[in-house]
Amino acid sequence: MAGGSGTRFWPYSRKRRPKQFLHIIGESPMVVETCDRLGTLARDDELILILGEEHVPEAEALFSDRPVHILAEPVGKNTAPCIGLGALCASHLGSNGPVAFLPADHFIGKKAAFLEALETAAALADTTKAIVTLGIIPSGPETGYGYIQKGDAISGKLREEAYRVSSFVEKPDLDTARQYLADGGYFWNAGIFVATPDTVLTACRNYLPELYSGLMRLQPSLGTDRFPQALEEVYSALKPVSFDYGIMEKTEEPVFVIPCECGWSDVGSWASLYALRQDRVDHDHNYSEGEAMLIDCRGSSVSSRAGRLVACLGLRNCLVVDTPDALLVADIERSQEIRKIVDRLKKEGKDDLL
Amino acid sequence: MAGGSGTRFWPYSRKRRPKQFLHIIGESPMVVETCDRLGTLARDDELILILGEEHVPEAEALFSDRPVHILAEPVGKNTAPCIGLGALCASHLGSNGPVAFLPADHFIGKKAAFLEALETAAALADTTKAIVTLGIIPSGPETGYGYIQKGDAISGKLREEAYRVSSFVEKPDLDTARQYLADGGYFWNAGIFVATPDTVLTACRNYLPELYSGLMRLQPSLGTDRFPQALEEVYSALKPVSFDYGIMEKTEEPVFVIPCECGWSDVGSWASLYALRQDRVDHDHNYSEGEAMLIDCRGSSVSSRAGRLVACLGLRNCLVVDTPDALLVADIERSQEIRKIVDRLKKEGKDDLL
Repeated sequence: MAGGSGTRFWPYSRKRRPKQFLHIIGESPMVVETCDRLGTLARDDELILILGEEHVPEAEALFSDRPVHILAEPVGKNTAPCIGLGALCASHLGSNGPVAFLPADHFIGKKAAFLEALETAAALADTTKAIVTLGIIPSGPETGYGYIQKGDAISGKLREEAYRVSSFVEKPDLDTARQYLADGGYFWNAGIFVATPDTVLTACRNYLPELYSGLMRLQPSLGTDRFPQALEEVYSALKPVSFDYGIMEKTEEPVFVIPCECGWSDVGSWASLYALRQDRVDHDHNYSEGEAMLIDCRGSSVSSRAGRLVACLGLRNCLVVDTPDALLVADIERSQEIRKIVDRLKKEGKDDLL
Repeated sequence: MAGGSGTRFWPYSRKRRPKQFLHIIGESPMVVETCDRLGTLARDDELILILGEEHVPEAEALFSDRPVHILAEPVGKNTAPCIGLGALCASHLGSNGPVAFLPADHFIGKKAAFLEALETAAALADTTKAIVTLGIIPSGPETGYGYIQKGDAISGKLREEAYRVSSFVEKPDLDTARQYLADGGYFWNAGIFVATPDTVLTACRNYLPELYSGLMRLQPSLGTDRFPQALEEVYSALKPVSFDYGIMEKTEEPVFVIPCECGWSDVGSWASLYALRQDRVDHDHNYSEGEAMLIDCRGSSVSSRAGRLVACLGLRNCLVVDTPDALLVADIERSQEIRKIVDRLKKEGKDDLL
């Protein structure tokens, strides 16, 4: 799932170059890392990238020598249509086994733990025909994520623990997040699902019938020249809805969660990226890259990406991101609010900077 | 006096383009403002600009249509040689009357008050043949300036008050500066002197004999082709010394001071420039120029001088200066320490950024 416009890493990310296509962290663009990380769990010709039409050239370039399937959404309609479309296509490609639905812009520090959880989820999804989700074991009282409350434990020959999901919970306030952490029965919802295509399509039929009928209208055109046109027609009529809200929070079927401690982050802001880079900071907790000179700075993140000297003196918790046509200087604690800058640029019609 | 290399406004000022040649504040480069401000007190052909060899082309361009005299020092030797040379040249140009020796990189907010003080100083210098200095009435306990302690008042038909100078005092610590302010008998030393050429040359003879003999060796070559070569020889042998230290603090002749309340600043740092721009800040005390977007910032100064967007979010007392090849982000309170950046650039051999 490589849709999404990504304003959170402005000015590095832009409309045409959202986070999943950037080297935000790691050696490759995040969408490539997401594919590579699966290792032997999936062959390239089993991978389906679903992304916005405007990013197809970028994706084709990144995967030019790999037989992955690239599917362009004419317009983003949130995750439920994306996952429904993915299930339909996986089914068309002949997959009856479980499919993992993965956001393409997340960081995972512990690959082995992630893959083990994914395998356990796949085994469970295969035998139970249920939707299985990964539950990230919280490392703090995070208010930026939704939570998954666990229910009864599942016994069986699974590699990892597994639980029934008791409920999906919206982003909590700080006190509630602290209670969740103390309770121990709550996981972060990473938006990672594993299920067979049939299970997903059945869930769509039951809870998002309009989406389901759209997907069914699309089915005959799969693999034909008519597909793009049909997709456009179907998508234009769809209401945007997330898979969490549209299905997971409503389903009456059992849903399972595999707890996972895999160093996961949604890398949702410059501040969370800075947090992930703590192994690369200096003794004053500064991260820097490119032509950066830091004198008496602390807790700051300085990225010179325009080949130009960025000299910093006496900064505290400051974020500096330099690009050829735009520069950001911000309190790093407020990097969640970068949308305000992007919104103002939109309002002022400065489309070239978006 | 337009010498000096000016690292304090890095990255805007550079070795080849020091502060006095920049539009730091006001409509024109500071050296032009310094000349213009004199109004009818001096004709253009009475103005002598003394500056570094490397800045002659810049000065010639700025004054291309004005008959000012441009004199290049082969190397900077502080203010005493500069003032001695100025006196020698003024004498050669036929001036027997008082000459004002003015730093070319100061800001003066109240031109009329400044000119009145200068006229009073000139009248006093003319009748007494003493060196007269302007004493800036302090507006705060400034520790960055030297002070002038006043002595007995001078009576006479002067437009303004005048005093004998009791002593010149080095930059004080904060407690001492506060005492000076409370005392009321101390002025800031702006390094502005008025005296006849003969008075200056006599003072050189008495207190800086090496400088004097150098100037005398130079005299026969004035106005000839041999002058640049002679100047080079004389200057290479001179010891750098300030007029304050070499003459004013040592002279046993009476010296006078004219108190002056003319909105003077030596504009010695980005912080003092920001202070001078308080009439142009927004309601959160931010100064900005160029393509700057400030969201929830306070007490900050943001200059976009590279035609590029500078977006700032949540900054407090922050200084941002963007230029095509270098960017500065600093705590504005620490802008006195910008020399540290310049020093490190020197050490790293990054001469193109100096």
